[in-house]
Amino acid sequence: MIPGLAHSATAPTPLSETRERVLRPLLTSRDIGEDIYALAAEIFPICRSIAGDGVRDTLDILGRHIPIERHEIPTGTKILDWEVPKEWNITDAFIKNAAGDRIVDFRRSNLHVLNYSQPVSRKMRIAELRPYIFTIPDQPDLIPYRTSYYSNNWGFCMSHRQLMALEAVDGELEVVIESKLEPGALTWGEYLHKGETADEVLLSAHICHPSLANDNCSGLALLTTLADALSSRRTRLSYRFLFLPGTIGSIAWLAANDANVGRIKHGLVVSCVGDDGGPTYKKSRRGDALIDRAMAHVLRHAGTTANLLDFFPYGYDERQYCSPGYDLPVGLFQRSQFATFPEYHTSADNLDFIASEHLGASFRWIIEALDIVETDRVLVNLSPKGEPQLGRRELYAGNGGDKDAQSHNMAMLWTLNLSDGRHSLLDIAERARLPFDVIAATADLLERHGLLAPPPDPGP
Amino acid sequence: MIPGLAHSATAPTPLSETRERVLRPLLTSRDIGEDIYALAAEIFPICRSIAGDGVRDTLDILGRHIPIERHEIPTGTKILDWEVPKEWNITDAFIKNAAGDRIVDFRRSNLHVLNYSQPVSRKMRIAELRPYIFTIPDQPDLIPYRTSYYSNNWGFCMSHRQLMALEAVDGELEVVIESKLEPGALTWGEYLHKGETADEVLLSAHICHPSLANDNCSGLALLTTLADALSSRRTRLSYRFLFLPGTIGSIAWLAANDANVGRIKHGLVVSCVGDDGGPTYKKSRRGDALIDRAMAHVLRHAGTTANLLDFFPYGYDERQYCSPGYDLPVGLFQRSQFATFPEYHTSADNLDFIASEHLGASFRWIIEALDIVETDRVLVNLSPKGEPQLGRRELYAGNGGDKDAQSHNMAMLWTLNLSDGRHSLLDIAERARLPFDVIAATADLLERHGLLAPPPDPGP
Amino acid sequence: MIPGLAHSATAPTPLSETRERVLRPLLTSRDIGEDIYALAAEIFPICRSIAGDGVRDTLDILGRHIPIERHEIPTGTKILDWEVPKEWNITDAFIKNAAGDRIVDFRRSNLHVLNYSQPVSRKMRIAELRPYIFTIPDQPDLIPYRTSYYSNNWGFCMSHRQLMALEAVDGELEVVIESKLEPGALTWGEYLHKGETADEVLLSAHICHPSLANDNCSGLALLTTLADALSSRRTRLSYRFLFLPGTIGSIAWLAANDANVGRIKHGLVVSCVGDDGGPTYKKSRRGDALIDRAMAHVLRHAGTTANLLDFFPYGYDERQYCSPGYDLPVGLFQRSQFATFPEYHTSADNLDFIASEHLGASFRWIIEALDIVETDRVLVNLSPKGEPQLGRRELYAGNGGDKDAQSHNMAMLWTLNLSDGRHSLLDIAERARLPFDVIAATADLLERHGLLAPPPDPGP
Repeated sequence: MIPGLAHSATAPTPLSETRERVLRPLLTSRDIGEDIYALAAEIFPICRSIAGDGVRDTLDILGRHIPIERHEIPTGTKILDWEVPKEWNITDAFIKNAAGDRIVDFRRSNLHVLNYSQPVSRKMRIAELRPYIFTIPDQPDLIPYRTSYYSNNWGFCMSHRQLMALEAVDGELEVVIESKLEPGALTWGEYLHKGETADEVLLSAHICHPSLANDNCSGLALLTTLADALSSRRTRLSYRFLFLPGTIGSIAWLAANDANVGRIKHGLVVSCVGDDGGPTYKKSRRGDALIDRAMAHVLRHAGTTANLLDFFPYGYDERQYCSPGYDLPVGLFQRSQFATFPEYHTSADNLDFIASEHLGASFRWIIEALDIVETDRVLVNLSPKGEPQLGRRELYAGNGGDKDAQSHNMAMLWTLNLSDGRHSLLDIAERARLPFDVIAATADLLERHGLLAPPPDPGP
Repeated sequence: MIPGLAHSATAPTPLSETRERVLRPLLTSRDIGEDIYALAAEIFPICRSIAGDGVRDTLDILGRHIPIERHEIPTGTKILDWEVPKEWNITDAFIKNAAGDRIVDFRRSNLHVLNYSQPVSRKMRIAELRPYIFTIPDQPDLIPYRTSYYSNNWGFCMSHRQLMALEAVDGELEVVIESKLEPGALTWGEYLHKGETADEVLLSAHICHPSLANDNCSGLALLTTLADALSSRRTRLSYRFLFLPGTIGSIAWLAANDANVGRIKHGLVVSCVGDDGGPTYKKSRRGDALIDRAMAHVLRHAGTTANLLDFFPYGYDERQYCSPGYDLPVGLFQRSQFATFPEYHTSADNLDFIASEHLGASFRWIIEALDIVETDRVLVNLSPKGEPQLGRRELYAGNGGDKDAQSHNMAMLWTLNLSDGRHSLLDIAERARLPFDVIAATADLLERHGLLAPPPDPGP
Repeated sequence: MIPGLAHSATAPTPLSETRERVLRPLLTSRDIGEDIYALAAEIFPICRSIAGDGVRDTLDILGRHIPIERHEIPTGTKILDWEVPKEWNITDAFIKNAAGDRIVDFRRSNLHVLNYSQPVSRKMRIAELRPYIFTIPDQPDLIPYRTSYYSNNWGFCMSHRQLMALEAVDGELEVVIESKLEPGALTWGEYLHKGETADEVLLSAHICHPSLANDNCSGLALLTTLADALSSRRTRLSYRFLFLPGTIGSIAWLAANDANVGRIKHGLVVSCVGDDGGPTYKKSRRGDALIDRAMAHVLRHAGTTANLLDFFPYGYDERQYCSPGYDLPVGLFQRSQFATFPEYHTSADNLDFIASEHLGASFRWIIEALDIVETDRVLVNLSPKGEPQLGRRELYAGNGGDKDAQSHNMAMLWTLNLSDGRHSLLDIAERARLPFDVIAATADLLERHGLLAPPPDPGP
């Protein structure tokens, strides 16, 4: 350090030196699950789609918690291999019988309309209408969620029982969809929590599904709550939160940030985090990125049966982040794996399907993985020849030898033995089959006693 | 291309660019199993050995289908660590009782004579003859197949029941073997199907066993039929077919072709391909050669329990091709693994033991593996950033989503995601757990739509 | 070789060229188990500790078999992160009741005194004495073994039943420990068997436990017997035997030999080798050192269920040898794994707990592993193209084909096939799933027939 240019005495020690565990206090915040649930419930009723006011209205609500930067790309703009579509906005839709009763009513569920339906206003008999109706015969009480973004179409989704009732109707039906498909913009929200370094963690949730609670509300609410919690904390890494329409949104973001994606060092796509299944982690395309190893470690110690999947090129926006031209270290965290639970993409994915308890648990698993990503580092044993005499330093739990003392001793011995400059704390935790937290805490203790230190600067 | 020196406009596009799947039509040739069986049956009666007219007579028959080049190496020639032996030719052999009845008769089965027996013409009692008789007491109705190529000996093989009958005979027996062991030549047959490149696939079958249907007739007939089928086709690779006596034949061929074995890029030894067992594939010594991976892939998708073996230095001519001084990428394809079925090396390995159906299936599995070896290549995704918009190109099977459409979509997504210049089509098929054929067809489709292309020439 | 400078004709051929199997005759020495047991029994009664006359008295006895070099480091000397402690010597200790009866008596078992107890001579009631008493309530008949080397303390160990009897005593107890804690020296014994090369095998046993038969006497006795057996033999490697106090002894040795530890190419810590459990092998920190592979190979072919453990940084002196600053290729051989059997560190670890039979078996397994380490080498096939004609050399077991002949043939084929300069004999044995001994004997046979040879000298 050049004399006279030193930082002021009050400048905090860089986290990159102390590796204070800044995220761990979030593990004990008691009401976090309730907070996430409340926010998910607040955005649930909005009729979102990939472009239009649904996205904007949702961002308005999320923006009350964190200052979200809004990005809009005009319809028709070329982005990578794609083009920004028209906006879709809808005010009403129904099927009325001859008596004027709304037999199928958008106001009851926005799932009733095929997402991105063109406007319709016609009288027709059921036989004529039938090709425009989507149901799930095997789940006759549920309304399916269907979309038709990139081909001109219209349609109604309804329970199979509703269809059977409709088929019994004699006479003409009034079929109305009051929607607009017009040039506008693609919208996404972005929030950056700046850390000490420019290295970034990407956290991404989709904002394009209408009233589906697990499959988009839960992820949006969890990430907003996480961003809010981080905002008052000093972190080593920077955290970039993206709230964007699936596929077209991440493609737009990647196109806009093509030159800078190299700063993304870790990332998670988050969706379906409110049900009682899983937890599920699908690895990034790389398969051995730190986030993959961290999440696998957390789930291995989660005390429940976790579902650890190799990357496959189908799912949420990890498909785009992990396309071969980017190959970013971004995985997917879920509870139940998408498309494997019966409520998936139906009206049963509602606010009864998610619970505070599960949202809270998801939040904590994510925090634990991010803590590893924040904190993992290589330390070196300063007394590498033979074991150091721990007893002299009163570090060794002696004579008695209860289970905790044994585990404490083993954590010290493992950390000392493997701190040879080639093993990070996560490496050590994996090898010792101990939780990362135990090894990280042990490393702190040993560092305070002068037995471990960061590796020497390799010099110029 | 230098102007004026261009190939004529009618020159076909090199297969190495289009990778047309020239072998796949052979998969549907309906009567191929019958053709192979008929040819195997035709050569079955001949009394073959490692050198002599049995080999020549067999090559005469195979040569009616393809123009086989015949090679002869004189007795006494040094080849690698070996020396070409004398020829063995036999016209008759029998054991007659006092009444003049042929109790054991070479004309009934050429297995009755110890292969390479010296001539004998003696009267002797059973006690004196006994040391020259071989039987299988555990399989008392079967004649064993035994040889004595490199030590002077003579003997008779017979069923244990025949031996017991002989032992009941009182009086002298007339014991005759009318054979000749004289200087001559070692003979093998060779057929080269020239492809566009000098890279070769070696396909090798042994031609040294007498009337054993599965253990030599089946392989000879299958390879001849395959060579015949290839002869009218344009292939990328060249295919070299060898019909040679086991061990001494492949050693002679290797000695004669020592300088050129580097052109062998893939290979299969083929034997015992007509029974209903297996399929069995024994990997080359390398273990991860393309032919090993291709055959393993085919057997994994064969819809039956396959037997995939690591290399071991015992078996057929792969022992020589995979000796450490050559270490060629040559595996062994069989149905039942040799020496594991009770008919092996007995008179029960006859024309009832093999069937058209099994020969046809073996043919198809071999074709599927050769198709991979012909076609596998690396392509690169020309739209590697984000997914390309498949829907716009009407490539994506949309809304409905039946099983086939899903599989089609997944094949496209996998092929695009992994076509990063580091994965071949077989790599992709393995990773996606889809048949090679599906990935190769998908790659063709994507290439036609301009989404994939061969990697750029690295230049001079 | 320069003419005139040749070695005399009577100089023995270096073992490094012949690789005579000098250790294997030790496998058949019949009474070795009895010899080891007798020596273990002889040293059993001595009250050893980490420094003091117990170590010296034990070395006196071991030294009757082999010339052990004794090393002493003065109290207070800094060694690595440690300091040599005072010596501890004890003459008597007891607890007497009011009637003068020795209720607890050091002369009955030296385990009764907390090892390294300070001197005590007081009258006290049981309530006052109670904090200084150690028992195992779950094993009420056994005296535990406890130590307090580095903190000032005193105490008595006794069976829980003895404690209950004591607690029933009314009146004062006379509590006496006649021990001395005074400056002196740390002692260890060392014996070097010089081989043809300076490469060393380290064989280490701890000498710091009092009357525990399996847990120190067995290892000391086995290594002494092994050293004795080696002393008359010519070996390729040098063998360094260490008899040293646990932890502080190996730390002292490492500190004293810091510059030369590179000559340790293989090593074993040996302890608890007399019970009927295991065998157990804990790999060195490297995990793939030759000694690790050799021991794993021996245990795999041991015909019993062996316990093969990855390295972990707890146990005996392998903790020090495998500390990251040294990382020596030293594993731990045991029968039952330490701390897993109920007799461990109790008075039940006595001479009834170990047996000649088990000591002999341990000896033989160790010899087998050392034989591999002595003998393993790379040979090259001099006839690598095709198989050499084994029949001509009368090496091939022919026609008949019993099981042994097949195994013999396979051993030859494997050895020839893999002797390509990249596989050692152990590599070949592992790949062929045959015992090392079979492959090594086969390699000798093939070498004698001129089919294998050491690789050519790479030259200057």
